[in-house]
Order: sequence, then C-alpha cells, then structure tokens
Amino acid sequence: MAEERRRGCLIIIGGHEDRDPRGHRVILKEVAKHVRGGKLVLATVASHQPEGYFDEYEKAFADLDVGELVELYFEDRCEAGDRDKLQVLDDAAGIFFSGGDQLRITSQIGDTGIEAKVRSVYERGGVVAGTSAGASVMSDTMLVKGTSKETHRIGDLHMAPGLGLIRNVIIDQHFAERGRFGRLLGAVAHNPRVLGIGIDEDTAAIVADDHLRVIGDGAVYVVDGTGVSYSNVAEAKCDITLSMHDVKVHVLAEGDSFDLRERRPRSA
Amino acid sequence: MAEERRRGCLIIIGGHEDRDPRGHRVILKEVAKHVRGGKLVLATVASHQPEGYFDEYEKAFADLDVGELVELYFEDRCEAGDRDKLQVLDDAAGIFFSGGDQLRITSQIGDTGIEAKVRSVYERGGVVAGTSAGASVMSDTMLVKGTSKETHRIGDLHMAPGLGLIRNVIIDQHFAERGRFGRLLGAVAHNPRVLGIGIDEDTAAIVADDHLRVIGDGAVYVVDGTGVSYSNVAEAKCDITLSMHDVKVHVLAEGDSFDLRERRPRSA
Repeated sequence: MAEERRRGCLIIIGGHEDRDPRGHRVILKEVAKHVRGGKLVLATVASHQPEGYFDEYEKAFADLDVGELVELYFEDRCEAGDRDKLQVLDDAAGIFFSGGDQLRITSQIGDTGIEAKVRSVYERGGVVAGTSAGASVMSDTMLVKGTSKETHRIGDLHMAPGLGLIRNVIIDQHFAERGRFGRLLGAVAHNPRVLGIGIDEDTAAIVADDHLRVIGDGAVYVVDGTGVSYSNVAEAKCDITLSMHDVKVHVLAEGDSFDLRERRPRSA
Repeated sequence: MAEERRRGCLIIIGGHEDRDPRGHRVILKEVAKHVRGGKLVLATVASHQPEGYFDEYEKAFADLDVGELVELYFEDRCEAGDRDKLQVLDDAAGIFFSGGDQLRITSQIGDTGIEAKVRSVYERGGVVAGTSAGASVMSDTMLVKGTSKETHRIGDLHMAPGLGLIRNVIIDQHFAERGRFGRLLGAVAHNPRVLGIGIDEDTAAIVADDHLRVIGDGAVYVVDGTGVSYSNVAEAKCDITLSMHDVKVHVLAEGDSFDLRERRPRSA
C-alpha cells in the first residue's frame, strides 16, 4: 500500500469552511478522517496576527478524530530553521494552512527546513490541507493578486512561485463569492498548460493520485484552456481587456470528481 | 438594401455606459450613429422613478447625431394604449430602454400597442438599444432574478418571457462586476439551446443579422452549452449546487465578433 501510493492527499479549501462546533463541518471532518487520530499541525504563518485562529480550530476539531492539534507560527523567516519549530512536524499526520496572505507563507517558509518537512509529510502519505491563502500556495505557480469583480485586464495579474505540491494547476479561492472568474480565465490565458481551479467558500477539492473530488456547499470550477483558439494576453498594452476564445469550463458540485491527467469530469 | 435587411440593429448594454458629456461615450456614440440624425425615444418605463434619467441622457446625447430625444414613460399599463404615447414611436429611428426592473418593462408593455410599435421600429431597420434591465428584456426568455456572487443553486433562478427581439439567447448584465457567472451558467443549463450572453458594465453587444460585435470597456462573455455532457439542473432538490460539465466559454473584448448562427467567435 505504502509503495503503491508514494504521496498523500491535498485538501484545498476555498475559504470560510464551516468551523462551528455545532455546524456540519463537512470539510474539517474530511481533514480529521485523513489524520486518523494522529497529530495535525495548524500552520498560521499566512497571518500577521493569528491570535484566535488556533482556539477556533481547536474547538472545531475537538470532537473529531484528531489526536493532537499543534500550532506552528513564526514571525520571521529566520525562525523557520529553529529546531523546536522543525520538530513539531516530525511526527505529524497532517498540516493545515490557515488563511491570510499567500506571500507570507511562501516568503517565510520557501526553501527552509519547514518547507522540506511539509513536503515530507505529504510524501510519506500525510494530508496537507489549506484554506484561502493556504489553498493558493499549493500549486507551482500561485495567484497572488488580481482584481476581482471585473473582467481581467492584461497586466493586472500577479503570480509567484508556490509550494509546488500540485503541478500544472493554478488555484483561486472565495471564487463565486468574490466574482473571480475573470482573473482565473486571465491566469489560464497566460499558459493553458495550467488548469484553472476556482473553489467556492465552504467547499474543497480533495486531490490524491491525480484525482480530484469535490466536497462542501459550493462548487469547484475547472477552467481548461487546452482548446483555446485565440487570446490577446501577449499584447503589449497592460490595460486592455482580455479576449479568449474556446475555453472549456466544468462546474463541479459535491460528489463530482475530475481526472487531472485526462482532464475529464465525472458526475456524482 | 431595405429588402436585403429586413431588421434593424440591437445595442445590448451591460449597464453603467459612460454618459459623461466629456467622457468617451463609446456606446452612446454608437447609438447615435444608428439614429443618424433621426428621432430617438428614451423609454424610461423600467423605472418607478425615472426623474433625472431623461435629463442625463439629453446632456449625454446633446452633441451627438440625434435629431430629437423624446421620453416615453407611463405609470400604468392602461396608458400603453394612449394615442399620444403611441404616436411618439411613429417616426422614431430608434428606441433606448434605460435601466430599472425588467419586469416593469414587460408587464407594462407586453402585448400592447407600444410593444407592437417597438417591434415595427426594429423591423423597419431602426435601432433598439437597452441598458441593464433594458438589455435583459430583449430575448425570448429573460433572466429576472437569481443570486449573484455565488454558485447557482438549482431553483434559485427566475425567468420570464421577454420582448423576443432576439431568439435563442439569454442575456445578463453588470456581468463581471456583480459576479453573475454562476447564474448565467445556471440559465444555460436549463436549456442549452439558448446561448448565454453576459455583458460587463460600459460594454455593449451590437447585434445585426445574426452577427454580434463588441464595443466598450469590458467584455462580453458567451456561454455555449451545446457540448454539455452532464448537468444536474433537473434534479428535484432546489437548494443543491449546480453541476455542469463541458461548457464552452468565449471572452470577447472590443472589436471581437461572434456569429450567432454558427456559434463561432472571431478576434478583432
């Protein structure tokens, strides 16, 4: 079994997952299921002021199958080499990146011992979950900034190298709620090799072995640029409006799945 | 020429078109171009309180090639048969529906002499323009209500018969700005025979002879459901999230055009 599956599982959450101890907590229950009574590390490093985050998640996970919930936070990059910080991850069954700013995560832990440990949790079959900013960082190239609620302007999008736990996709979160369709289309236009994955709030894409499955209240949008016949994204002027023909879109709801290699959806 | 082209032109505007007398007024200039010094009727019937609308448009059109701008407004449906109201449209080169509530337009003028006159302006080669609610009413079936900024829930969408000046499409406006992608996808899921057309603010689709052309600042989104391989829209529960696979989307910017019969885009 361990040899068959060299990697673990990603739980990529669109933000605002239900954390009410009396709520449905569909997504946190899924996280707990993968942790199977082991240790879950809550990385609050995306936030400048993570006060309260840990308490909230501790209450939310209290009656779920998480053996131990431990916070990982540091103010500065230099702390990412601290022995006690690193040790926290040694026996972790999973890691959960809470929300904030995706650049905080990558600039603080990129190319540090912490990043190596996160990768090793994943490679030995653990779960890496992330919500909001914690979702965006999972890909090779991540979306950092771009206007919501308007059609993409060429030159408006900011991207940066992410943690690279999943390749050939680019992730956006709070998707329908913040009207981010335009910017995800814009990101895919830059290089249709990447599949755009837009995740609604309280919704998650669970990825294992090139297979994506949807849980939660909203939808996961998959933007496939393979068949794009024209786009103006390489034009010189930054403020012109995106034009892009023949994009394929899938709207996936709970139970739907998607084969990331074949780029094909399957219904519930 | 008159025999070759039995119908006029539609200018379908996504709302908030530039009306500043010192602004670019790309869309109003296009309207004026089609009016060619003739009479333009501003129908403010979509609004309960159209005070100020006429003044604003009068200022905006003042230095453009509109010979005469006349307001058409009535409070109640019974007035839609008034002789003086009807006469206003007799020699009109164009009609412009301002914004408000699309149901005000259809419930007030549907199946009245006014509606017949609007149709005859169009059929004798005139221009029918409409912004926001005035855009939505142009299709056979129009979108009336549906939540913005979230993924479509089955049962959440309200549609009604429109003026039917353009067939086999359904129009949405304030499109990227109000995050209406989800609801337009939902509308197309209901019957992929209709092409979804989502128009951004200060942007217009000019339709003549099954040919659509884009002008303005934002984009026109075309949602083509022809290839949809699966959707759950016919399922019984109203509050479940839309699932819909293999939708084709085109993002069209100024200068791009679209062949409505062949359903094919063409770049600028």
